[in-house]
Amino acid sequence: MDATWPASSSATPRYAGPVSFFRLPVRLDPKEADIALIGLPYDGGTTNRAGARHGPRALREASMMIRPFHHVSRTSPYSTHRVADFGDCPIDPLEIEASLSLIRDHYARFAAAGTRPLTAGGDHLISLPILRALAARGPVGLIQFDAHSDTNDSYFGGHRLTHGTWVRRAIEEGLVDPRRTVQIGIRGSRYAPDGNDFAEQAGVTTLYIEDVYRLGLAGVVARIREVIAGLPAYLTFDVDGIDPAFAPGTGTPEVGGYTVHEAQVLLRGLAGLPLIGADVVEVSPPFDPQGTTALVGATMMFEILCVLATPGAA
Amino acid sequence: MDATWPASSSATPRYAGPVSFFRLPVRLDPKEADIALIGLPYDGGTTNRAGARHGPRALREASMMIRPFHHVSRTSPYSTHRVADFGDCPIDPLEIEASLSLIRDHYARFAAAGTRPLTAGGDHLISLPILRALAARGPVGLIQFDAHSDTNDSYFGGHRLTHGTWVRRAIEEGLVDPRRTVQIGIRGSRYAPDGNDFAEQAGVTTLYIEDVYRLGLAGVVARIREVIAGLPAYLTFDVDGIDPAFAPGTGTPEVGGYTVHEAQVLLRGLAGLPLIGADVVEVSPPFDPQGTTALVGATMMFEILCVLATPGAA
Amino acid sequence: MDATWPASSSATPRYAGPVSFFRLPVRLDPKEADIALIGLPYDGGTTNRAGARHGPRALREASMMIRPFHHVSRTSPYSTHRVADFGDCPIDPLEIEASLSLIRDHYARFAAAGTRPLTAGGDHLISLPILRALAARGPVGLIQFDAHSDTNDSYFGGHRLTHGTWVRRAIEEGLVDPRRTVQIGIRGSRYAPDGNDFAEQAGVTTLYIEDVYRLGLAGVVARIREVIAGLPAYLTFDVDGIDPAFAPGTGTPEVGGYTVHEAQVLLRGLAGLPLIGADVVEVSPPFDPQGTTALVGATMMFEILCVLATPGAA
Amino acid sequence: MDATWPASSSATPRYAGPVSFFRLPVRLDPKEADIALIGLPYDGGTTNRAGARHGPRALREASMMIRPFHHVSRTSPYSTHRVADFGDCPIDPLEIEASLSLIRDHYARFAAAGTRPLTAGGDHLISLPILRALAARGPVGLIQFDAHSDTNDSYFGGHRLTHGTWVRRAIEEGLVDPRRTVQIGIRGSRYAPDGNDFAEQAGVTTLYIEDVYRLGLAGVVARIREVIAGLPAYLTFDVDGIDPAFAPGTGTPEVGGYTVHEAQVLLRGLAGLPLIGADVVEVSPPFDPQGTTALVGATMMFEILCVLATPGAA
Amino acid sequence: MDATWPASSSATPRYAGPVSFFRLPVRLDPKEADIALIGLPYDGGTTNRAGARHGPRALREASMMIRPFHHVSRTSPYSTHRVADFGDCPIDPLEIEASLSLIRDHYARFAAAGTRPLTAGGDHLISLPILRALAARGPVGLIQFDAHSDTNDSYFGGHRLTHGTWVRRAIEEGLVDPRRTVQIGIRGSRYAPDGNDFAEQAGVTTLYIEDVYRLGLAGVVARIREVIAGLPAYLTFDVDGIDPAFAPGTGTPEVGGYTVHEAQVLLRGLAGLPLIGADVVEVSPPFDPQGTTALVGATMMFEILCVLATPGAA
Amino acid sequence: MDATWPASSSATPRYAGPVSFFRLPVRLDPKEADIALIGLPYDGGTTNRAGARHGPRALREASMMIRPFHHVSRTSPYSTHRVADFGDCPIDPLEIEASLSLIRDHYARFAAAGTRPLTAGGDHLISLPILRALAARGPVGLIQFDAHSDTNDSYFGGHRLTHGTWVRRAIEEGLVDPRRTVQIGIRGSRYAPDGNDFAEQAGVTTLYIEDVYRLGLAGVVARIREVIAGLPAYLTFDVDGIDPAFAPGTGTPEVGGYTVHEAQVLLRGLAGLPLIGADVVEVSPPFDPQGTTALVGATMMFEILCVLATPGAA
Repeated sequence: MDATWPASSSATPRYAGPVSFFRLPVRLDPKEADIALIGLPYDGGTTNRAGARHGPRALREASMMIRPFHHVSRTSPYSTHRVADFGDCPIDPLEIEASLSLIRDHYARFAAAGTRPLTAGGDHLISLPILRALAARGPVGLIQFDAHSDTNDSYFGGHRLTHGTWVRRAIEEGLVDPRRTVQIGIRGSRYAPDGNDFAEQAGVTTLYIEDVYRLGLAGVVARIREVIAGLPAYLTFDVDGIDPAFAPGTGTPEVGGYTVHEAQVLLRGLAGLPLIGADVVEVSPPFDPQGTTALVGATMMFEILCVLATPGAA
Repeated sequence: MDATWPASSSATPRYAGPVSFFRLPVRLDPKEADIALIGLPYDGGTTNRAGARHGPRALREASMMIRPFHHVSRTSPYSTHRVADFGDCPIDPLEIEASLSLIRDHYARFAAAGTRPLTAGGDHLISLPILRALAARGPVGLIQFDAHSDTNDSYFGGHRLTHGTWVRRAIEEGLVDPRRTVQIGIRGSRYAPDGNDFAEQAGVTTLYIEDVYRLGLAGVVARIREVIAGLPAYLTFDVDGIDPAFAPGTGTPEVGGYTVHEAQVLLRGLAGLPLIGADVVEVSPPFDPQGTTALVGATMMFEILCVLATPGAA
Repeated sequence: MDATWPASSSATPRYAGPVSFFRLPVRLDPKEADIALIGLPYDGGTTNRAGARHGPRALREASMMIRPFHHVSRTSPYSTHRVADFGDCPIDPLEIEASLSLIRDHYARFAAAGTRPLTAGGDHLISLPILRALAARGPVGLIQFDAHSDTNDSYFGGHRLTHGTWVRRAIEEGLVDPRRTVQIGIRGSRYAPDGNDFAEQAGVTTLYIEDVYRLGLAGVVARIREVIAGLPAYLTFDVDGIDPAFAPGTGTPEVGGYTVHEAQVLLRGLAGLPLIGADVVEVSPPFDPQGTTALVGATMMFEILCVLATPGAA
Repeated sequence: MDATWPASSSATPRYAGPVSFFRLPVRLDPKEADIALIGLPYDGGTTNRAGARHGPRALREASMMIRPFHHVSRTSPYSTHRVADFGDCPIDPLEIEASLSLIRDHYARFAAAGTRPLTAGGDHLISLPILRALAARGPVGLIQFDAHSDTNDSYFGGHRLTHGTWVRRAIEEGLVDPRRTVQIGIRGSRYAPDGNDFAEQAGVTTLYIEDVYRLGLAGVVARIREVIAGLPAYLTFDVDGIDPAFAPGTGTPEVGGYTVHEAQVLLRGLAGLPLIGADVVEVSPPFDPQGTTALVGATMMFEILCVLATPGAA
Repeated sequence: MDATWPASSSATPRYAGPVSFFRLPVRLDPKEADIALIGLPYDGGTTNRAGARHGPRALREASMMIRPFHHVSRTSPYSTHRVADFGDCPIDPLEIEASLSLIRDHYARFAAAGTRPLTAGGDHLISLPILRALAARGPVGLIQFDAHSDTNDSYFGGHRLTHGTWVRRAIEEGLVDPRRTVQIGIRGSRYAPDGNDFAEQAGVTTLYIEDVYRLGLAGVVARIREVIAGLPAYLTFDVDGIDPAFAPGTGTPEVGGYTVHEAQVLLRGLAGLPLIGADVVEVSPPFDPQGTTALVGATMMFEILCVLATPGAA
Repeated sequence: MDATWPASSSATPRYAGPVSFFRLPVRLDPKEADIALIGLPYDGGTTNRAGARHGPRALREASMMIRPFHHVSRTSPYSTHRVADFGDCPIDPLEIEASLSLIRDHYARFAAAGTRPLTAGGDHLISLPILRALAARGPVGLIQFDAHSDTNDSYFGGHRLTHGTWVRRAIEEGLVDPRRTVQIGIRGSRYAPDGNDFAEQAGVTTLYIEDVYRLGLAGVVARIREVIAGLPAYLTFDVDGIDPAFAPGTGTPEVGGYTVHEAQVLLRGLAGLPLIGADVVEVSPPFDPQGTTALVGATMMFEILCVLATPGAA
């Protein structure tokens, strides 16, 4: 295997050797890969329980368990694409605006190189500066796995840049086209009767968890593809979309979500869509003492990596 | 918002400020509310692993995560009902009979005021003295979410007042009408081949977990409503009815139960029934290091609160 | 009850008294039982995270929670069969070949006595020497609940006796008939595109997790019975076949598996098959701080015990 | 080695084989041993956090780590005394008075046989019925390692039989001679300025933790021996006397106690005193997820066993 | 007892009833108390692992274990002073400057009322705005229990308001007199050879952990009193001054610190000093799964409360 | 700073960026450093609870917390020595002899380059093959911090290569001079009255924990220096020498050891001795859920690194 294949865990045990995403080589220059795995250790946008800053390290370590080939497609993303670990994105742990600039600038380099990023967060606010870099030339579609709509206007007396408001900002800034936006797994108590009004009036397609079970998995996939309409889209996977029994280690758990298997089937249904990048966010290791959530998050990253590497993807 | 609305967690973060059920005001006089949230820190009826005495404190803290509006009904229980936290019920940690008297007397005050109680236990024995207060004038229906029938006759050489015998006592004492009693989720190994004989001969409707999956969720809801027949009923939710993957922190876990989402759908199906009160029991924090079970229990309390606040409920 | 019934947990609480499988009597001579419960504290075949050596002790303790009667069949295995705890099998913690000999010799005594063993592992390699004892006179069928096929050829430069290669060895040694072998729940990333080639070319029936949901539980049961064809078979239950939300304490977790309830329904569907023995493996207590996995494993042991005790079983 | 020696952990690993105290044989007849190891799974006297009912099982398992010879004395208790595990004492989990009777009767059998018991509790109330059996013929001395004096009069409106009042009862009942009673490690906040008045007026020698450090370990040993005056005494070791950093798993932790090493030196200083029995209490496994406290408790049991087996001991 | 005494835990068990600091009444008006207990749920100044925002809630709950009288002084702070819980200070979770203003304004009300605050943090940055309120009229002395000097100049490219720079800011702003400042327990690796240069050149007395053991506890107390010189001083207790074996739940643990007992003796040595306020900071519940650190922190708060209530204190 | 200085944690937060020992650069060629940090993920010599195979990864991550300068010496090892992370040593997880060869060969390269290794284990058996490489030309002295003498002859029927026998092998093989060997902290129960006979007859200086407290820390340092006599020696630090309250995450905990601070003082006393290499072993992450032990181990590595970098060291 060439230099972009992972070290084999049947040769060296998974608890030995250097830690990188999926045991892949580490690279610095965006041009050296088609798909870039990037850690984003920032949780300054969190309104409740922090800890997602520790997500990239835990996700990297858990990803050491993942072998190269997918058992359904029987192919490996490394067969067709150059994939590498590009380390962690620079951030400023003490200032939101500064961090958003650092993140946008970092991802602009990958956008310029035509290298699609798959990011390990971090809280959900990080998707905003990533989109500022990737969608600089016009709105893209958004596929959002999440328990929360993230379309509140502000928190705590006017703060508009948080992990609970970023989708609204992304729409307002013209980064995301709400009519090409679909949210999957929304649920739980909310602040107002109309809670999701902004999203709905803007034309976002919100699939509540009840909708997921009513439509069935195939129906949800069909609905997502219909909304995205074959146009470029960004995929964001908040691990709290999954039920907390499967993924307890997150800052704002909402009970009653989909299972990991259901999430896997939905993700596989996205193969062939022109995705410009993706992320897995809100894995919070201090609330994940057994590492369960990190393993779920790393597996979701692998499923998404396989989608990104499907022929036909952007 | 008036004084019976919860403090907003978009104004003050959920980890700050006073702890009360759902961030509601604390009240002393039963007349000051339509629905009373009460902690009942007693586990003296436990036959195996104790710890439910710590349930009310953990459930209160977890309930701080819950916002006012339900995402399906799009209404808030606080829009139509006065709801408040009435603190913890007095108990005697060292004597069962004394505790049962203290509990019955405490709830009699709420019964007299026409204030319906929603209780956070505590082990399951606490439902008995609550019913002694609420069903003093004649038998009521019983909707019991549980892995266990709780209709054994006695334990350990004749003890008849335990969390495994209280349903039998409630039937014998004429507090509960067995023909208007339905148990949902019963499963697991048992002491005798006929185990549930008392319940069956008395006319109780027992829906084993196999029945739940055979009937489907809509079928179970229909069966519950058929058994209750529109007459006054008490709702008791033992958290061990849910699968231990979702709710590990309980004294007598039985693997193979329903999911949280399934429990939510079933509870929502009770809207409009004339419920005279309800409880969530057997959350045992010493066996719940991650707080998963407390969050599940608090969410079930919110679902039940929304049912109690539905127009048409008792 | 005679001496082969468990101590009652309604007489003595489950946290008191001697610890043995299901509170059964301890025996030494294989002739004293029809079904032998045996601990096998060995994990020297593990290629990743060790700890299954501690499985038997944790499974014994968790099994103290299980009462004698099954709630679906309404019978007890102790009504028709003599069942006892035969302690732990001797092993050599520092040498694989020596351990395999010790295990085979130990189980040969039970085979000679006509006593069927139900083993608590240990890592999955232990099934190989058990089969060397039980299938000494010719290949048997194999029903394998597992996330992994365990048909790799070797690890780490040629090691052929591991928990990831044992099924291949068992087929090569003529202990198991691949055409009468069925694997249920296979999933997850793999080392090669064709990963399971050996198994497939040998004629093994592999039911991926996707097949399980496609066929439905009744369909899977039908397929298993078709493959086994009424001939003698061994049942091996790797706890990692179950989703890690339900059974996190295992060495090689693969997210996206079946639930405990689904596993229970599948196991009950095996009643009447001529099983010559069974095991539950890969419970790893160091990765199971809450004991969830041990309780799941012990319950699976009870389900299997009930299957072994069904009239018509070997 | 004869049948009263433990199984060797250099022959069979400590995670394998039957679980008994120190891997000793299990016996039923008190006459078969000089020193009896007894589990007492009762915590009905607890006024705060329960869980000590699970102590005996955890202490047994932890004791599997202990080898036969003491590294200071270079002798083994098994060289000179017959020591065996006598299982768990019967108790009534739901009634204090009934449990006290069961315990007293059980220990009376050992007293009658002249077999000295070393008990693994259970909460501290269990020392009272043990003393009712052992000190039936007149008051004995008492050496109490503890953070709490346990001489309150009553709790919760008059309950006089609790783990916080048992020493007062033992003095009042003439089981313990207060002038031959010494408490070591007392500390922490208390209910009244004079808190310990009863003890002091009765003549009990109370060594606060400050006294321990002022006198030094040798000074404390001298003081204990002075108080006991060579007369028969009972030794009770509440694990909460040790600092919670070393022994977190207990119901009423008080920070600022002695270290394990200090406790070991003090216990060794008791060699040669005429001890009539001993116990280690208040190990609470639900609050001891790492098993640290159980290992400390089991080691204290071994230290005490070596003291009991010193020539000259009663 | 009057209304400023805690609820008794011999009347109501500690796991029942409302949660407030030391079970004290809750008050709003600073004039209603001599000493105010205040929660400060802010950790925005953290440079490494967050979580101290959850400190106040955990400290309140742990403080429920503390009874009114101190076992050494045999007096209660409630005998001579009005003490109450004033809830949590308002903060802005997303902006440092805004939070510092909110905190300073909140404490200015207590300063104006002459009510001395004892604060439960929060990260260590919170001491800065508290001092801005309390030392508005001129520099005060500072007694700092800590593993870190907190006199770095800035972090991450110039951030000057963090939990690692606040002492330098307090000196620069003239809130603290460096010649009347003493740090106890400093240790651990540092960023530069001279690390503490600013502190030393400014005249701060730094007692490294090696100094603590060289001087002995009495020597340290003497040194502190010498530095403070009988003038008004603020006491700040960073829980990471204590060894992580005793207090693991903190964001920046440094191994090799003093024990809890040693800290207690040092704190008691401060009795009579004119303290204007105090805090306990850096308890981080997400890193404290067993609650050990919260109990240590709450006990330190009680020790400090007793010092604040000593006759002669400011 | 040049390329052998660690990345600064005041510039990039410690939870971000690549993970390497002390944030040092990663190197491949032994000639590129004076001191080599090496992970050795092997625990095949373990006789009880495995898990030290995961030690290197946990120690690397914990070492990210350590800054460059020592607070006592006020110097940095990086000021005078080139130090780098050389990744993990190759091992064979399934075969002891093969692993010992791989390890010896790997370290022979460092010995040939004159680069002294500081190893993160792994179980204690790994010190044997390291010594086979480093002491190939004749016996060296040995300074062993440990609770166990590791001089048993064999385990489980003759296995002579284990973590409990390696010192005996090293003496027998002439790698270690027993008269220049000193063990510090030995304690706990043992298999035979004379337990340590081999060590004592061979001339090993064994300092039991009682000796440590009798001699005092300065006395122990003097004794170590006397035994080593200024000749080349290897330093091995088994984390179980420290009390389990400080370092619970190890396979064979023995309560009653020294504190971390005491260990630090002893290690610092070794400065100037001609050490040829060192290791920290037996950190077992599966038994260290809070990471306490990993942080202790990493800090011990830093203390040792500073000793290795003292002028005068080999």
